[in-house]
Amino acid sequence: MTEGPGEELREGLDGVLACESSVCHIDGASGLLLYRGYDFRSFAVEAEFLSVVLLLWHGEWPSEDVLAEFSEETKHHRDLNQVVADLLPMITDGANPMAVMRTVLSVAGVLDQNAEDSSPESVLRSATTLISMTPTVVASMSRLTQGKDPVEPRRDLGHAANFLYMLHGEEPTEGASAALNTVLNTYAEHELNASTFAARTAVGTLSDYYSAVVAACSALKGALHGGAIDDSMYLFREIGELDNVSGYIEEALTAKRKVPGFGHRVYRTRDPRAYPMEELARVLGEESGETQWYQIARSVEQELLERKGLNPNVDYYSAIVLYHLGFPLDLLTSFIVTSRLAGWTAHICEQFESNRLIRPRARYVGSTERLLK
Amino acid sequence: MTEGPGEELREGLDGVLACESSVCHIDGASGLLLYRGYDFRSFAVEAEFLSVVLLLWHGEWPSEDVLAEFSEETKHHRDLNQVVADLLPMITDGANPMAVMRTVLSVAGVLDQNAEDSSPESVLRSATTLISMTPTVVASMSRLTQGKDPVEPRRDLGHAANFLYMLHGEEPTEGASAALNTVLNTYAEHELNASTFAARTAVGTLSDYYSAVVAACSALKGALHGGAIDDSMYLFREIGELDNVSGYIEEALTAKRKVPGFGHRVYRTRDPRAYPMEELARVLGEESGETQWYQIARSVEQELLERKGLNPNVDYYSAIVLYHLGFPLDLLTSFIVTSRLAGWTAHICEQFESNRLIRPRARYVGSTERLLK
Repeated sequence: MTEGPGEELREGLDGVLACESSVCHIDGASGLLLYRGYDFRSFAVEAEFLSVVLLLWHGEWPSEDVLAEFSEETKHHRDLNQVVADLLPMITDGANPMAVMRTVLSVAGVLDQNAEDSSPESVLRSATTLISMTPTVVASMSRLTQGKDPVEPRRDLGHAANFLYMLHGEEPTEGASAALNTVLNTYAEHELNASTFAARTAVGTLSDYYSAVVAACSALKGALHGGAIDDSMYLFREIGELDNVSGYIEEALTAKRKVPGFGHRVYRTRDPRAYPMEELARVLGEESGETQWYQIARSVEQELLERKGLNPNVDYYSAIVLYHLGFPLDLLTSFIVTSRLAGWTAHICEQFESNRLIRPRARYVGSTERLLK
Repeated sequence: MTEGPGEELREGLDGVLACESSVCHIDGASGLLLYRGYDFRSFAVEAEFLSVVLLLWHGEWPSEDVLAEFSEETKHHRDLNQVVADLLPMITDGANPMAVMRTVLSVAGVLDQNAEDSSPESVLRSATTLISMTPTVVASMSRLTQGKDPVEPRRDLGHAANFLYMLHGEEPTEGASAALNTVLNTYAEHELNASTFAARTAVGTLSDYYSAVVAACSALKGALHGGAIDDSMYLFREIGELDNVSGYIEEALTAKRKVPGFGHRVYRTRDPRAYPMEELARVLGEESGETQWYQIARSVEQELLERKGLNPNVDYYSAIVLYHLGFPLDLLTSFIVTSRLAGWTAHICEQFESNRLIRPRARYVGSTERLLK
C-alpha cells in the first residue's frame, strides 16, 4: 500500500496495534499482566518455570505427566554442541556477553538440521534445545571470564538448580533454586516488547525460527530494553548507604538525571513483576546479610513515588535478586534470554500460524528529486 | 501508551508511517525510487557502487578524492578475520548460506573492539569493514561448497571485479564487473523493507550496529523478502523453453498458483529496479549464448501483464543476471547482504541520531482472566 495522504506519523509505533495475539495481555493502566489468561502474580512464585514455558507454548498448564516428560527432555539438551563448546572460549574473552549469546544462537541454527522446518513441532523441538542449553551458555561465560573451567550440567537437578550449580560448581540451596525459578517466570513473556516484535518481523518474511530468535536477542541487547537490567545495582552501589538516598535523589532530580529502573512504555502503575522481585530481594538480602541493597531500593522507590509519582519496572529489584544469586552483573541481560525464549517462541509460532509480512513505510523528509550533475 | 479504545488493527503495518527518513523515497504509484533524492534509474548503470554507498551514508555524492580514499580503505578490509576464516569451513557444509552469513556478521561484532561505540564515525568504520569483507564471505562459501579453496582477495582490483575474481579464481571481463556493479547499486537500499525495519527496531532499544545488521540479515533471509530471489530462475528452468510459456501460465492461473518474481507490497507499477536488471539479463544472455532465460522471462512478464495486470519485482530479472555472473543460486540472498549493508547502515545511523524505542502493542484475543485451579 502506498502511504495514504491522511496517514499520521507513528514514531516508535507507540500504541499501534501491530498484530493480534493470545499469548499475553498487559493492561498498563491497572498494572495487570496475564500469561495465556492467568494473572502473572498468581503463579509467579509457585509455578515451575518449565510448566510456564509449556503454558506459553500450548495455552494450557501441562499435566504432571507432560511436565515430567518435558523436564526429562530438557535434561538431554543441556550440554553444548561441540562446535559451540569450542567456539565459546575463543570469543568470550573481553566480548559483550550479549554479542556472544547472539552468536551462539546463530551457530545453533546453523547446526540444527531442521532449522528450515517451520512447522510447530519443529519449532518447539528447536526451542526446547535452546531453553535447555542457554543456561549452560550463561554459566560457561561466567566461568570462562573468571578464568575457570565451565561446569558440566547435572541431569539429576531441576532446571533452576542445575543453572545455579553450573554457575557456582556447587549445589544450590532450595531457596536459591526457588528464587531463580521465580525470576525465570518473571522474564518469560511480555507481549510485543521490542525483542518479541523483532522476532515477529523476522518471521513475517518467512525466515526461520533461529533467525527470529537471533533478531530478538539483537534487540533485547539494547539499554532501552534488556540491556540495562544491571543499572539499578550500579545506582544502589553509587548511593552506597541508606542515609545517602534523599541527598542523591534531590541532586538527581535537580540535575534532571534519569534514575535507572523507573519508567516503562506500557505501565502507568508499578510493574506487576516488581512485586515478586521486591519480595525476593528482601528475603535474599536478609539471608546473605547484605540487606543494604534492598533497603536503599525501597527508599529510592518511596522518594520517587512521593516526589514524582514514578514507579519501578521489573529490572529494578530483579538486579538485586540476580546479584544475590551470584550472577555477574554483566551477564544479567543474557540471563533474560534463557527465560524470554519461552515467550519469543510462543509469538514466533503464532506469527508462523497466521503470517503477514511486517513492512511499514517511512515518511520521506529528504531532498525532492535532484538531478545528476 | 496503553492501547487506545479507537485504535484499529494494522496487521503487517501496511501503510503505517513508522518513522521519518531522508535516505530513500519510493512512490509506489508512479514507480519512482530515489536514493537521497537521486532517481535510481539515472545512476544505476553508471555510478560506482562504492560511490552509491557514500551517497547513502552521507547524503551527497563523494568527490573523486573521497571516493578514491574510501575505495583504498575497503581494499584493506577484504580479508577475513582469522576466527571467521577458521569458522567458515566448519559451518558452511550443508548449512543454509544465510544462516552462515548471519553468524559471520555476529562473530564480526564480537571481534570488533569498537562494536559498542555507536557514534556515526564508529558505525561507519564498522560498516566499511563489512562492506569490504562480506563479498569475501560469499565467494568463500561458494568455493567451499564446491570443495575448492577460497581465493584470497586482490587489492589491485575494484570492488566488483575483485568479488568476481574471488568467486571464479580468474579475472573477470570489464563487462561482467560493470554488470555486477549495477546489481550492487540495485540492491543497495529500499526504504523500510522488513530487514531495514528490523535493523531500526534493534537500534530502537539502543542496541549496537552489529546487532542491528544481524537482525536485518535474519529478516532478509525469509522468502517474502530476499530469501526467494532465486525462485524466478527455478521458474524459468521449470518452463524450460519459450514455447511452453503460454501453457505454463495458463495452468498456473487456473490453479491460482503464485508465480515467483511478481508482486510487491509498495509498487503498483513495474519495479523501477527491474529495468536495468532486464537489460543486463538480455546482454549477458546474448554474450553467454544462453538467451533462453531472458526470452522466457520476457514472455512470462508479457503474459502476466496482459492477463492479470501483474508487474515483476526486482528479483525477477536479477536472478538471471547473477546466474550469468556465476553466482550459485543458493547464494543469491547472501549476495544481497553485501549490497543492502549500504542502506541498512544509512538507516541505522539515522535511527541512532534520532531514536525512539520501537514498541507497538498487540490486540489481545486470548482468554479473559482465568483462575488457577
